[in-house]
Amino acid sequence: MKDVVVLGAGRVGAVIAADLARADGLRVRVADASAAALEAARARCGGRVTLERADLSDPAAVARLASAAQLVVGALPSRFGFAALGAVIAAGRPCVDISFMHEDARALGPAARAAGVCVVVDMGVAPGMSHLLAAHAVARLGGARRLRILVGGLPVERRLPFQYKAGFAPSDVIEEYTRPARVVEGGRVVARPALSIVERVEFAGLGTLEAGLTDGLRSLLATLDVPHMSELTLRWPGHYELMRAFGEAGLFSEVPLDVGAARVRPIDLLSELLVKAWTFAPGEEDLTVMRVEVESDTRRLEFDLLDRYDRASDTTSMARTTAFPCAIVARLLADGTLHAPGVFAPEELAGVPGLVARVLEQHRERGVHYREREVPPC
Amino acid sequence: MKDVVVLGAGRVGAVIAADLARADGLRVRVADASAAALEAARARCGGRVTLERADLSDPAAVARLASAAQLVVGALPSRFGFAALGAVIAAGRPCVDISFMHEDARALGPAARAAGVCVVVDMGVAPGMSHLLAAHAVARLGGARRLRILVGGLPVERRLPFQYKAGFAPSDVIEEYTRPARVVEGGRVVARPALSIVERVEFAGLGTLEAGLTDGLRSLLATLDVPHMSELTLRWPGHYELMRAFGEAGLFSEVPLDVGAARVRPIDLLSELLVKAWTFAPGEEDLTVMRVEVESDTRRLEFDLLDRYDRASDTTSMARTTAFPCAIVARLLADGTLHAPGVFAPEELAGVPGLVARVLEQHRERGVHYREREVPPC
Repeated sequence: MKDVVVLGAGRVGAVIAADLARADGLRVRVADASAAALEAARARCGGRVTLERADLSDPAAVARLASAAQLVVGALPSRFGFAALGAVIAAGRPCVDISFMHEDARALGPAARAAGVCVVVDMGVAPGMSHLLAAHAVARLGGARRLRILVGGLPVERRLPFQYKAGFAPSDVIEEYTRPARVVEGGRVVARPALSIVERVEFAGLGTLEAGLTDGLRSLLATLDVPHMSELTLRWPGHYELMRAFGEAGLFSEVPLDVGAARVRPIDLLSELLVKAWTFAPGEEDLTVMRVEVESDTRRLEFDLLDRYDRASDTTSMARTTAFPCAIVARLLADGTLHAPGVFAPEELAGVPGLVARVLEQHRERGVHYREREVPPC
Repeated sequence: MKDVVVLGAGRVGAVIAADLARADGLRVRVADASAAALEAARARCGGRVTLERADLSDPAAVARLASAAQLVVGALPSRFGFAALGAVIAAGRPCVDISFMHEDARALGPAARAAGVCVVVDMGVAPGMSHLLAAHAVARLGGARRLRILVGGLPVERRLPFQYKAGFAPSDVIEEYTRPARVVEGGRVVARPALSIVERVEFAGLGTLEAGLTDGLRSLLATLDVPHMSELTLRWPGHYELMRAFGEAGLFSEVPLDVGAARVRPIDLLSELLVKAWTFAPGEEDLTVMRVEVESDTRRLEFDLLDRYDRASDTTSMARTTAFPCAIVARLLADGTLHAPGVFAPEELAGVPGLVARVLEQHRERGVHYREREVPPC
């Protein structure tokens, strides 16, 4: 038996824990600061986990939990991710992380190599499967000239005016709509205004979506040698036009404005107003849609994902598609398939023989289907 | 010679003064608290007026100015209108007013009759010509079952996302979009949510507009015996959909919201943000569009107005179409055509023999063309 500790019992952490609790040979411990979150996670795991309340913003607490396990899964809020990962590496434990930290986790590579531990970061759906499949397709084509990742989490019910709900704060969504998008053009990294490209995309089973340029390439900017790369976020048609109007009205501004006697940042007021309209109701259905397009001079491969809320387990598609890649990689760390010391982005695992096929097969077992096809190049 | 005093040297007051200064037999005095506004009015009048600085929020100042003239024109901000009109009536002077006061000016009717003075209020384009032409058409048809007034002031240049600019504060525009619209249905006055009807309207020379239900019938609710009446505000297509989204996002709310340490009403922040985007630049072209539809069981009359910014005189269409009816009625008060004591809404002048024809003719002389036509009833 191996001991694995899942740091964070949030919506994604709980689903990872439940997945690992079903594995033979793993004893799962879940840690979180919230007793309610821990109890919810235990219920989701059918009781087959132990719980520990701990302040995971404290690296010492993380180090203690990591030392008591043979494997660590990081599912913390992004602001705690980097410090926690540093503590895990210092404790000498392998780890898979989906905290999506703002910092560059690869800066911890030397420490991981010195400690002899294998660490995989950004191992969700996008980043995560997006990056793994991108590198896999590039290798299959023997090199590529163009990569696009299109991905979105959406409500099934399209309610006007927004046709959108999020699993996180509106201000974080709007940050995606405003942060300059780093893309690769002719081999060079350049920053383009977010949503400066918005185009229609047809998706079987959904119809027409809109894809807006965002800043989601992350590690691919450095790891993949493809001269044209971009990432776009998918929304129901009309959402971006409305968001553009909100932005042009000044509502996204972070500059404080005097309003009578008060002084307020427009983005803070807007975020406050949108919380209710943009939050999924309990049991409300979401879906996840992704397309990874990789093109060489002569061929084009595409991977499509369309996943939906699972009513049987009351699990959002967002949680399913984010948690499963992480849980699958945790198993590959546990069984020794992944063992090279260092900090790796998902795309750096694509070269491990048989790994992509195994990851896709394990997704299929969980009802998540990535469909590959070859289409004529543009 | 008759002495006329124009109370208020704003954008509309100055154009009224300039119009009256060209009349034989009138000596024009313009009063305002702002020296700059007075100088701008004098320039517009070619110097043919005298100026007086006065605080017109003070009824005593208004009474003094009125007493020194034989005729008064009220062109004040709406919040000063009612008190000023009371002072004018107490001074025993006839008056035409376009202050568009929130109060019901007809409450001053007994005082006007006691003083033996004729007062005409709301004498702009809408309310104003809208109401006069509505009553005129109803009389022409020998009664009507349906009246609709469609009217809007718009920028010629349609710039996304708003396609709208205003001659006044964004909060006043939004108030029109939120104040319940009083309409007449089956002979009864009922309040409907503003913009609960938005429909397409085709207008020769402009193409497609959108008409949204607003609260513009004012005195017609009481004066005109037509079982179905409504007023709609015209905008370029798309504007209302965007405004609806803003409203649904909570941005029109007058309920203070805690945003961090600040407490702010969303409408105040939005109004602050929109001032720049919604204000006409100097010399920027506007247009005024109006349609008055009156229908009996067998016939339908329509009056159409399409007026544009006048570059030669640097006069906005809003100022032209609002000032001219007022100036024309001032002349009719000066020459004794209108003399019955009381406070009258424009529609109550429609029965004065020959008056509508004279008002339309005087508009034509000023380049403002109301076009009448008969169309088949719906």
